[in-house]
Amino acid sequence: MKKILVLGSEGYIGYALCQHLVNKKYQVLGIDNQSRQKKVEEIGSDSLIPLEGRPINWAFKEGDVRDFALISEVLKDMQPDVIVHLAEQPSAPYSMIDVNKAVETQSNNVVGTLTLLWAMRLFCPSATLVKLAAMGEFGDWIYEKAKIPESNRITVFYDGYQIEIPTPHFSNSFYHWSKIFDTGNIEFACRLWGLKAIDIMQGSVYGQIGWTRFDYDEYFGTVINRFVTQAIARLPLTIYGRGGQTRGYLPLKDSIQCLELVIKHLPQKDEYIVVNQFEGLYSINQLANLVKEVGDKFKLDVQINSIENPRVEKEEHDYNVEHKKLLEWGYKPTTDMKAELRKMFKILLSHKGRIRPAVIMPKTKWR
Amino acid sequence: MKKILVLGSEGYIGYALCQHLVNKKYQVLGIDNQSRQKKVEEIGSDSLIPLEGRPINWAFKEGDVRDFALISEVLKDMQPDVIVHLAEQPSAPYSMIDVNKAVETQSNNVVGTLTLLWAMRLFCPSATLVKLAAMGEFGDWIYEKAKIPESNRITVFYDGYQIEIPTPHFSNSFYHWSKIFDTGNIEFACRLWGLKAIDIMQGSVYGQIGWTRFDYDEYFGTVINRFVTQAIARLPLTIYGRGGQTRGYLPLKDSIQCLELVIKHLPQKDEYIVVNQFEGLYSINQLANLVKEVGDKFKLDVQINSIENPRVEKEEHDYNVEHKKLLEWGYKPTTDMKAELRKMFKILLSHKGRIRPAVIMPKTKWR
Repeated sequence: MKKILVLGSEGYIGYALCQHLVNKKYQVLGIDNQSRQKKVEEIGSDSLIPLEGRPINWAFKEGDVRDFALISEVLKDMQPDVIVHLAEQPSAPYSMIDVNKAVETQSNNVVGTLTLLWAMRLFCPSATLVKLAAMGEFGDWIYEKAKIPESNRITVFYDGYQIEIPTPHFSNSFYHWSKIFDTGNIEFACRLWGLKAIDIMQGSVYGQIGWTRFDYDEYFGTVINRFVTQAIARLPLTIYGRGGQTRGYLPLKDSIQCLELVIKHLPQKDEYIVVNQFEGLYSINQLANLVKEVGDKFKLDVQINSIENPRVEKEEHDYNVEHKKLLEWGYKPTTDMKAELRKMFKILLSHKGRIRPAVIMPKTKWR
Repeated sequence: MKKILVLGSEGYIGYALCQHLVNKKYQVLGIDNQSRQKKVEEIGSDSLIPLEGRPINWAFKEGDVRDFALISEVLKDMQPDVIVHLAEQPSAPYSMIDVNKAVETQSNNVVGTLTLLWAMRLFCPSATLVKLAAMGEFGDWIYEKAKIPESNRITVFYDGYQIEIPTPHFSNSFYHWSKIFDTGNIEFACRLWGLKAIDIMQGSVYGQIGWTRFDYDEYFGTVINRFVTQAIARLPLTIYGRGGQTRGYLPLKDSIQCLELVIKHLPQKDEYIVVNQFEGLYSINQLANLVKEVGDKFKLDVQINSIENPRVEKEEHDYNVEHKKLLEWGYKPTTDMKAELRKMFKILLSHKGRIRPAVIMPKTKWR
């Protein structure tokens, strides 16, 4: 079976992915520097799923992707077929707290990916990099009604000529800019050194599988996970602004399914490939209403509040995204979001006592 | 008179700019961490103009732009009208040497600019950032025959719609990518926090003024400066590949003239402005022939050799660049490149004995 190196194996997606790949008999090595857990503790929160006693059923090494000597050694020894790179600071609001967090985010993410690319070039140039990027790289306004492509190039008419340009990216946080910067470096390295990479523009992930961590705080809790936690804690779901902000979403189990499909459909030649990875597009208002509907079945009498938007973003906009590759590769989307939400409520209600309400409301303002 | 903070005041442009601004009675504070001199020594070279005993006729502080405490203190105390940010690792080939140099380049440049933006936001939000970017941000192929804009947005037709997109950027070195990343962060900070910035897409600079440093090595010598040095050392001018690579160029005195014009035409409101700064567009072959023509007048019998291109770049391409703002502001381009070259030969011939031929030929290969 393929050898998979997972960088960031202790994160929300990383742990669930390693468990899934090991169950499917892949040979897995996980690397992590515990940065997620440290950051969550630093902002006064903790995983809602208790992590004490959690097993690690795969080879594991403590380490940092920015450590070139370590990564080089691992690549030389293991010669992985695939390197799944999840070892990034994943939070937009965290990157907006202050100068230190902004610098930490961009330097961790950009330097980590750049270091990995050099190590791949030198020690395993035929491996495929599977990099978790973000749909946030497309911004909220550039494309208007036009289709966001699943490609690194678009053809446009400009100044009287038909030209092919790099797919436009644009962002509203220093975190998302770091993802855009990574995309620039990765595509350049593929073009320059003949590496293979799949850059996954992933929507926001929600849900719970097995013993993976579950964050619900302002910074590391994605919106649906925060809403479900608020409902369980009998706090109103907080919509930032008007709630028309639309993005792609997918349950964690779909993210894992898609990552395995990507691993099964590696490039045959030196290539940089973009994959848009999501189940469906939803506005914040739609999500809040779905969580309310399911939460009310659990007799939680869910309230929805709109608060002043701490972010800078469009609150009403079009959003039209190409979504072909994963479906062609066999992705079966979980279209029943309510069933997913019901599962979440069932699992998380038993940890209700661990919720720290103080970490949920946004304290970091973009301006 | 306006108060000007110059970051990178010991560099090739920085020193000449400070001297010019002080002569024009601006109030100048220079900051530098000696990084340029250290890097030039590290690669075995030295400034062709000896720097011993060089005067600094302006206020100066040793320091690093990544040092948030220092930069914050300086901004608070000085309240500059303009911050000219030249404190970046400026060499594309240097960024391609190895993983350490690539990481150093991107983390120095991105973290420095990001730190400065946060300090401006907090301590002098009404100052204008004048940032030295690079025409290399436009890449060598995207625009084909279409015009490279002097703006941060272009209107294109795509997927049946007319949309406004961020000006496409693309690059062929980790250095130029760092400049593109800076541009992303700067524009975002202006949009987010209401800062003012002028991002100068500058061509390659050549020539010599006063006591500023003059580098001619593979890494820090720009192409015309290298060619003139080769001619003086009776070495063939080395053209990388076919020599059809076309870019914007300008003499150092024009760069200084333009920077002063920018300082005189600051944005009246919160705004991010792009300025394309160059005298003319030249191919490498044109430049080599001009240097030969002038060098031969000095009886140097200049030879021209084509060598295998160590870089990855198009060697023949169109290049059509909008160039309006500086001309509207009064820029008088030095159109007589031969006169500039004659001046360079006269100055540099007297330092002929200091040339170290070993540092000129390219050792760093992109692939």
